[in-house]
Amino acid sequence: MTTPDPIRQVAVMPLPRGLSIGSGRLPVTASQRLFLCDPADRRVRAGVGRALRRLEERTGLAFARQSDSDFVLAEQASTAAWVVDWMHPGSDVPDLGEDESYVLEITPTQATLRAPSARGVLHGLETCLQLLQSHETGWYLPEVTINDRPRFPWRGLMIDVVRHWQPLEVILRNLDGMALVKLNVLHLHLTDDQGFRIESRTCPLLHERGSDGHYFTQVQIRQIIAYATERGIRVVPEFDIPGHATSWLVGHPELASVTGNYVIERQRGIFDPVLNPTLPVVYTVLERFIGEMAALFPDAFLHIGGDENNGVHWNANPEIQAFIREHHLHDNAGLHAYFNRRIHTFLEQHGKHLVGWDEVLHPQLPADSVVQSWRGADGISEATKQGFQCIRSHGYYIDLSLSVDEHYLNDPAPEGLDPAQQSRVLGGEATMWGEWVTPETIDSRIWPRSAAIAERFWSPREVRDVPDLHRRLPAVSRRLEEAGLRHRSYVEPALRRLAGDDATPSDLAALRVLVDLLEPVKIYRRNELQAEIDLLAPLTGLADCARPDSPEARAFACRVESVCSGHFASADLAAARQQLFTWKLAAETLSQGLCLRSPRLQDALPLVQILASISDAGIEALHALDEQQGPAAGWKETHEKKLELSGGAWAATELPIVGSLRQLVAAAAAGSAPAQV
Amino acid sequence: MTTPDPIRQVAVMPLPRGLSIGSGRLPVTASQRLFLCDPADRRVRAGVGRALRRLEERTGLAFARQSDSDFVLAEQASTAAWVVDWMHPGSDVPDLGEDESYVLEITPTQATLRAPSARGVLHGLETCLQLLQSHETGWYLPEVTINDRPRFPWRGLMIDVVRHWQPLEVILRNLDGMALVKLNVLHLHLTDDQGFRIESRTCPLLHERGSDGHYFTQVQIRQIIAYATERGIRVVPEFDIPGHATSWLVGHPELASVTGNYVIERQRGIFDPVLNPTLPVVYTVLERFIGEMAALFPDAFLHIGGDENNGVHWNANPEIQAFIREHHLHDNAGLHAYFNRRIHTFLEQHGKHLVGWDEVLHPQLPADSVVQSWRGADGISEATKQGFQCIRSHGYYIDLSLSVDEHYLNDPAPEGLDPAQQSRVLGGEATMWGEWVTPETIDSRIWPRSAAIAERFWSPREVRDVPDLHRRLPAVSRRLEEAGLRHRSYVEPALRRLAGDDATPSDLAALRVLVDLLEPVKIYRRNELQAEIDLLAPLTGLADCARPDSPEARAFACRVESVCSGHFASADLAAARQQLFTWKLAAETLSQGLCLRSPRLQDALPLVQILASISDAGIEALHALDEQQGPAAGWKETHEKKLELSGGAWAATELPIVGSLRQLVAAAAAGSAPAQV
Repeated sequence: MTTPDPIRQVAVMPLPRGLSIGSGRLPVTASQRLFLCDPADRRVRAGVGRALRRLEERTGLAFARQSDSDFVLAEQASTAAWVVDWMHPGSDVPDLGEDESYVLEITPTQATLRAPSARGVLHGLETCLQLLQSHETGWYLPEVTINDRPRFPWRGLMIDVVRHWQPLEVILRNLDGMALVKLNVLHLHLTDDQGFRIESRTCPLLHERGSDGHYFTQVQIRQIIAYATERGIRVVPEFDIPGHATSWLVGHPELASVTGNYVIERQRGIFDPVLNPTLPVVYTVLERFIGEMAALFPDAFLHIGGDENNGVHWNANPEIQAFIREHHLHDNAGLHAYFNRRIHTFLEQHGKHLVGWDEVLHPQLPADSVVQSWRGADGISEATKQGFQCIRSHGYYIDLSLSVDEHYLNDPAPEGLDPAQQSRVLGGEATMWGEWVTPETIDSRIWPRSAAIAERFWSPREVRDVPDLHRRLPAVSRRLEEAGLRHRSYVEPALRRLAGDDATPSDLAALRVLVDLLEPVKIYRRNELQAEIDLLAPLTGLADCARPDSPEARAFACRVESVCSGHFASADLAAARQQLFTWKLAAETLSQGLCLRSPRLQDALPLVQILASISDAGIEALHALDEQQGPAAGWKETHEKKLELSGGAWAATELPIVGSLRQLVAAAAAGSAPAQV
Repeated sequence: MTTPDPIRQVAVMPLPRGLSIGSGRLPVTASQRLFLCDPADRRVRAGVGRALRRLEERTGLAFARQSDSDFVLAEQASTAAWVVDWMHPGSDVPDLGEDESYVLEITPTQATLRAPSARGVLHGLETCLQLLQSHETGWYLPEVTINDRPRFPWRGLMIDVVRHWQPLEVILRNLDGMALVKLNVLHLHLTDDQGFRIESRTCPLLHERGSDGHYFTQVQIRQIIAYATERGIRVVPEFDIPGHATSWLVGHPELASVTGNYVIERQRGIFDPVLNPTLPVVYTVLERFIGEMAALFPDAFLHIGGDENNGVHWNANPEIQAFIREHHLHDNAGLHAYFNRRIHTFLEQHGKHLVGWDEVLHPQLPADSVVQSWRGADGISEATKQGFQCIRSHGYYIDLSLSVDEHYLNDPAPEGLDPAQQSRVLGGEATMWGEWVTPETIDSRIWPRSAAIAERFWSPREVRDVPDLHRRLPAVSRRLEEAGLRHRSYVEPALRRLAGDDATPSDLAALRVLVDLLEPVKIYRRNELQAEIDLLAPLTGLADCARPDSPEARAFACRVESVCSGHFASADLAAARQQLFTWKLAAETLSQGLCLRSPRLQDALPLVQILASISDAGIEALHALDEQQGPAAGWKETHEKKLELSGGAWAATELPIVGSLRQLVAAAAAGSAPAQV
């Protein structure tokens, strides 16, 4: 047995910039005390309290306390096992560009966390919690020296609370998840065609008529901001204008480009309704509304959307087209830029910077604006070339169920930027669009994959070892679950509901096996496959229980890779075979049982039949490889045809093992003779 | 095969008073429409909206809607599949004694729900949802005629939010659970030695100093009341005085009977601090506070606690004893009655009735007061004999982990009451005391067992078929889970946390088997066994993952009963043996693996060793019975001794199969020769 790489003993994510690990251990016991250099700093003290509470819940240790959020502290550093030392509390509201660095030194006798700011302390505490490990009789922190700071200052998660309403508790628990992986910007997509999700006291018709009653009150917004601030996270609100604006027009049809009786949109897609930038009343309302929101949200940035105005209603209104000509705006893009400039003046009055999606990019866009690039890698190059600061979301669309590897390897700063351009890349944002998620399922689309994206935003560019990402991801996923996220725990009750009252324990076990293998269809395919499901319909089906990045499929792919490489370990072959038998058995159980009895699983019947059949193909292929016997003539063609068919989608889910099985069948047919290790 | 009793096809709880079932079915499809006799009645319309949303989430059907809470209604009753008809909306705030009856008639073509009040409609909707069933291709309601009304008007659940803080979301989801089983009173235990959990604007020091920041704001209280009112549930607040009052004295030490510096209590138990009923300031503060709370809570009843004043501080204060003599109050009980009379005058000013625990019973207690009996069956007899209205909680202490059967068979009106006394029994309340529950675990102590208690409060006295209760309980448990309760779903993540990062899937599966068998120790035994755990310590151990009423243990007991009865079905023997093998395997897996590796499961090592050993004893006993061979000499004694030892507790859990195993060993030793059926 070789000595393991010491870095491989820990599962911290994001990976710290400077990390060295010793062989010592600092035991963690309930009698230990913690020393704070300034016990009166409320934010650090509360952060330490939360961290120790999580440590207690995980370890079962009970530290001495004054209350459940406040621990008994050591009087002096020398008697403390843990010392936390910081230079200043930092600004009341987290700033872009504030120093978030920290130094964590753990020896066998003491752990010391030093940071220039409270935010650095919070980051260091998260690292510390991720370092905690157990042995037979207790808990310890490994001996480490960590010198850490983020690569990018803007590390965001956008949550769309419009397409499906996401109430306060969803936001709060996701803020806990963000803090855990050092994300520092919550971007709330608050208005869109399908809803106006924030209380406006100056224009109350907006939320009263545009929201079905599902909106954040200003009290709740303040609660979100306070919760985020406690965790060093900025909150950037987005009010999408001039397009994506149907919900504005339900309460204020006088702002529309085309006269009409507007109702809240219930479908997914891009729609025509758009504010009319030629009307003075539009600016009267927006000036008032932006002033109100600028006062409510303390952050220096305010997002005005600006995406996907299809121009249909602007083209349809001759007065708008006349306005474009009169003001020499050339075209709709010029009108959009004119509109943005006017909005920019309102923002300027309140000391706010404008943020907008790709489409706001225009020679007339004021220079202090920030472009959020989503349409392609060129967006960043183009915007930074024009001198704008940028954040990247292209490649971080976590609603599309793509592989986490793709997101992980996607860099906020694409190749080919000059140093000046590079300096304008502020960071990135994962975007959780809400068309297909409910409060029940949303965590499973965000986590744990956003931890990988968080590492991309935090750690050096060179950190891009995909297998090591996957080594660490399960531990981070458990920490996220312990922090209150439900990306795993929602599955069990959702499957019980889906299976129905007649399901036996073995039915449920088989369904669990199936669902742990399946993945939801990718990109925008579900929109086509389940076009009948509008935004008011329930989302409690098979695709909602399936999650992206099936660990089972990934493990299988690695084993198949190993088996087909020609110098595989026999353990991989055995493990792959075991998986195939498990899938086959589950598929047969379901195809002969629950899928016949349950009205909710009828559309999964072809799926499980195919799974049983292709599992068999895999078993045969492994047998051939193991025995080093080439299969019979026609075997390959039969199975390739079968696999061809199995690349489809059923109940908006797909089988992520088809590629691996193709590989296996090809290898078996080629008679690859693997060398046993 | 005999025709099944048609009532056994449905799993409604509480069982309706009048229920007849036909053989027809009303199909349920998304194209069906619902007719409301008064679509403008907001409460009914919202209740119907919630019911249909739950139906959609369960079935996957999507009905036509205006918004997610509001469905497209039929224009006329004749074209509707479902008709809801009620006479009046009922009072804005649910009243004690309001008519809650309903009539539900389902034919193969139409379901009609009729009720005198909105509350009856809400009850009927819950019945309807519980009747919903599926077959291969769809969903249906069985043909039924139900004529239902409650036996008692006061059907409560008390939640102690003091000993462990239970935030808003816990209360709201439990209100959903209450509505599902037709409970109609939420009793909030808001103050006690360990916390003052409500914002007082007139006496803000109470919550500011007495709560660690964990209290309901008045905005939240209004939210709870609105949520409850929507569901036809009354909210009765309890402010426990004069004892259980430490938290009052943290902010207001001048109210104390003994001068001191009071701090929030962190232990369980009965404590000395008590208000001083001889001081005018006490009445000044209480008059103001009660006035404030009377305005906040619309219900006609207000609970003033009154329990467990141990008299120590009253005895210790000579001025108090002098006051008792001067006012001819005889003793501390007389002083307590004097205090209650003065509080009663404050309540009277606001039109509120006094409710108090057993100890308020006294000849001087004003006649319109209500006694909540908790100390024994005699409490109800005595209080009703003295002319007081009563609610029973004795026998409904769901925090004690006793068998649901005990609670179910415990009648609010004990035998031997005369008709006048019987008429004074308003109903009962399940009491969820909070010493050993957190927001994570509390649901598992309340549900599904409180559904059985709800049936006791609602259904006729004669409904007391325990096997039929257990036939229906799993379905009700699933409905409760679908409504948002986490009594089952919290277990999986809690076990992952407990097992730690090194646990394999098979470790976790074995731990799940163990935990599904275990029960927490009963009555107040955990207080002794884990005395070191104070109210600030984490509750994430084995006893917190174990739940009362293990279905596995119950199934085993039934099978053993059958096996030992002498005319058993061989299927029972096989199933019992299968269970024993499962337990043995899990116990061995854990004792050789996780219990050795995990610091959190070391105290479970003797437990799993004993489980493996007694499972073996059971397997041997079944073998002897099956083969009709008496075991060897000494066998019985050896195993009885083993079982004697296994009656203990480990990690504050116990093995609920010991009794059944004793029975089995005795039967095997006696050489009972069962007849195969």
